[in-house]
Amino acid sequence: MKVTAVSKFFAELIGTMVLVLMGCGSAVIAGADGTTGVGLLGIAFAFGLSVVAMAYAIGHISGCHINPAISIAMVAAGRMKAGEAAYYILAQIIGAIIGAAILSLIASGKAEYLGGLGQNGYGDFSPQKYTLQSGLIAEIIFTFIFLLVILGSTSTKNINGGFAGLSIGLSLVLIHIVGIPITGVSVNPARSIGPALLKGGEALSQVWLFIVAPIAGAILAAIVWSLLLERPDRKTA
Amino acid sequence: MKVTAVSKFFAELIGTMVLVLMGCGSAVIAGADGTTGVGLLGIAFAFGLSVVAMAYAIGHISGCHINPAISIAMVAAGRMKAGEAAYYILAQIIGAIIGAAILSLIASGKAEYLGGLGQNGYGDFSPQKYTLQSGLIAEIIFTFIFLLVILGSTSTKNINGGFAGLSIGLSLVLIHIVGIPITGVSVNPARSIGPALLKGGEALSQVWLFIVAPIAGAILAAIVWSLLLERPDRKTA
Amino acid sequence: MKVTAVSKFFAELIGTMVLVLMGCGSAVIAGADGTTGVGLLGIAFAFGLSVVAMAYAIGHISGCHINPAISIAMVAAGRMKAGEAAYYILAQIIGAIIGAAILSLIASGKAEYLGGLGQNGYGDFSPQKYTLQSGLIAEIIFTFIFLLVILGSTSTKNINGGFAGLSIGLSLVLIHIVGIPITGVSVNPARSIGPALLKGGEALSQVWLFIVAPIAGAILAAIVWSLLLERPDRKTA
Amino acid sequence: MKVTAVSKFFAELIGTMVLVLMGCGSAVIAGADGTTGVGLLGIAFAFGLSVVAMAYAIGHISGCHINPAISIAMVAAGRMKAGEAAYYILAQIIGAIIGAAILSLIASGKAEYLGGLGQNGYGDFSPQKYTLQSGLIAEIIFTFIFLLVILGSTSTKNINGGFAGLSIGLSLVLIHIVGIPITGVSVNPARSIGPALLKGGEALSQVWLFIVAPIAGAILAAIVWSLLLERPDRKTA
Repeated sequence: MKVTAVSKFFAELIGTMVLVLMGCGSAVIAGADGTTGVGLLGIAFAFGLSVVAMAYAIGHISGCHINPAISIAMVAAGRMKAGEAAYYILAQIIGAIIGAAILSLIASGKAEYLGGLGQNGYGDFSPQKYTLQSGLIAEIIFTFIFLLVILGSTSTKNINGGFAGLSIGLSLVLIHIVGIPITGVSVNPARSIGPALLKGGEALSQVWLFIVAPIAGAILAAIVWSLLLERPDRKTA
Repeated sequence: MKVTAVSKFFAELIGTMVLVLMGCGSAVIAGADGTTGVGLLGIAFAFGLSVVAMAYAIGHISGCHINPAISIAMVAAGRMKAGEAAYYILAQIIGAIIGAAILSLIASGKAEYLGGLGQNGYGDFSPQKYTLQSGLIAEIIFTFIFLLVILGSTSTKNINGGFAGLSIGLSLVLIHIVGIPITGVSVNPARSIGPALLKGGEALSQVWLFIVAPIAGAILAAIVWSLLLERPDRKTA
Repeated sequence: MKVTAVSKFFAELIGTMVLVLMGCGSAVIAGADGTTGVGLLGIAFAFGLSVVAMAYAIGHISGCHINPAISIAMVAAGRMKAGEAAYYILAQIIGAIIGAAILSLIASGKAEYLGGLGQNGYGDFSPQKYTLQSGLIAEIIFTFIFLLVILGSTSTKNINGGFAGLSIGLSLVLIHIVGIPITGVSVNPARSIGPALLKGGEALSQVWLFIVAPIAGAILAAIVWSLLLERPDRKTA
Repeated sequence: MKVTAVSKFFAELIGTMVLVLMGCGSAVIAGADGTTGVGLLGIAFAFGLSVVAMAYAIGHISGCHINPAISIAMVAAGRMKAGEAAYYILAQIIGAIIGAAILSLIASGKAEYLGGLGQNGYGDFSPQKYTLQSGLIAEIIFTFIFLLVILGSTSTKNINGGFAGLSIGLSLVLIHIVGIPITGVSVNPARSIGPALLKGGEALSQVWLFIVAPIAGAILAAIVWSLLLERPDRKTA
């Protein structure tokens, strides 16, 4: 089978839709309280298992980026062309908006629904009132770690490539276990843009951080990977 | 070894029995309260790990559908004949009833047992009073996502096929993390029919939704898979 | 390397020691309360992850039974000689006693330690007062399920054999998620004998059930496996 | 690609940084309370999933020790030269200090931050006031178990080597599920040194135990492995 650009586009769109619907949905529908809801640990698993599920569902079609920061890092690491990345990012953002819209539709079927969509925030809109500076550092470093796992586990030099979907998804569980109190965790501009666009207000005015910081962390990871940990893949071809 | 139809029948029967006994059993016996019981997260893991366990136990015998929606989607995707699917579905429903009966037997050994069997519901019988409309949309979309993971991770074009059992089971964990408050999560007509038949009353009168919605979501996934994501397998043979 | 009987003996001894120390230790040290301790879900993961850890550590040496019911089922399924099973069971029981002893030693370093060792029980000694009958049925059926996963995932007809350690361990997580309120979950005579011998009293007088029921469930699984699901392995050699 | 000493150095440094930042960060930022935070189970997953993530990210570069006790055990088991181990340990300690420093920087962005860095302790500084003796025994035995998993799952005689990252990481989840109430769990001198150096005071005066006990347990595991379970690898070369 020749995987067409259309297949890749819909794979990225649907994959990002699933990530936003299920990740943000776990917080909105099932709740962050560990006694009555799934708790922070449950939300962390929801985001990470969305990636595990999609990695083995569509990984062989599009590579399952479902995150603009990953596509940009792949360009920076010499593994993807800029034009294709732009095409991926468009699909991811559309998918994220659709995911947030479906979440809104389902969640509004409960009388007490307050309108949250799992949007990210800092300062007064941080879940536990962490400053902008903490949020910025955390998002850069978490995305940096996330991308190191992605670059390493999908490296052609890694003989255990089949485990990449698991290790990448579980690293996203890890990042959410630690970081939800700070910003709700983005590490993915599309995941933040979707809910922010539908929610508007402060969510939208703060979304810049969740675009800038993940992209910065991702590019930093690509540079550290190429300079310190492994020579760039393009040189081994 | 030639896997006979008898082996497949009993594999599907036992597998579905395990899914209902252990998945519903986690809610009935161990409880949805995260402080004194296993919580929503524990119930989510029980459903998903039932699939992981059975996938590696009987996957090489019957494919481990243990869900009529999966068998129907396999027919829609051209991977299974309708006659065999009917045979599978019969085994699944019998297994689900046996699973619910064993659960009832064990659970009744506690003096305070109230008679619940993990039945699904919407409206007044939704765990958190979500409307029929929300339940319907959620069950369709959750089954759609579930089937995409199944179709993708078991595709002959996916070189990481050994991970299918894990990714499918973990995607069911994910779906339960998000969806228990809405309907208790079915995405599987047999899983709903078993407890509903033994429980009767409203559980039985609402069971139509948990037959119609999962089948609709599964067929939708087969169509999207074949049209947008991957050409149907029958054409590559 | 020729794996000697001595290596197998110590592998089974140490593996069972780890299972009892860590599984029972999670309940005794970390606690069944989900707010202040690891909760029922944490205890469930402790038992199951002990098996995952040991399966990949010593599986290539002894097969990692660490459970007399498994060794007996392997004899019943024609995969092991009775003499070797007896030798395994001796190692398992010694290991379980050592595990319970180490647990007692560590736990007694806390002033408030009440003396529990994670012993199993039914009736008045069931965690939630389930009857003897419920405990008996639950232990038989849970061990039956456990052994189906073991027989299937380690079958020579299963091409995904590398996943056996994960699927078996995760099936033990599953069984504990459901069953802790009933008996504390044994499905393993050695796991019950170790704590019961050191604890004495009612734990010891009730230990018969946790010897009889798991063995019955395991033999039942071997029979169902051979008759209904897969022809016995000895015939395919 | 020839993996250079520089690549290995930075892999170990970054890997240990991630372990300390994310493992200790889960306790400091997300919290040990199971209702409002991620609970003990969430912290246990954070430490273990840090290892899973790093194992598949940098395992093919440095082997992903990120723990001086592992490097020392590898020397004792004849799998590594002492000079290289010293080089690894230096990188690990630097990485741990950087990880603790980043954690301090992020955590201080919350007004109520009390200054904890996930430091280990015994006696009055044990989370639940376990004695020095309990802490010493627990750390020795937990590291012994951890190293058995590492030696076994990475053995050249183990055909399921791809699962090593998962089984080792999940065994660290297991150890934390059981042991957090005793010492907070170290089993890794670098993980204790990083927070202790930045925290000072009692954390620093107690750090000797978390250097001595893990190293003792690791060497004991290497001896038991070579004498009782498997002949040393150097003899099979």
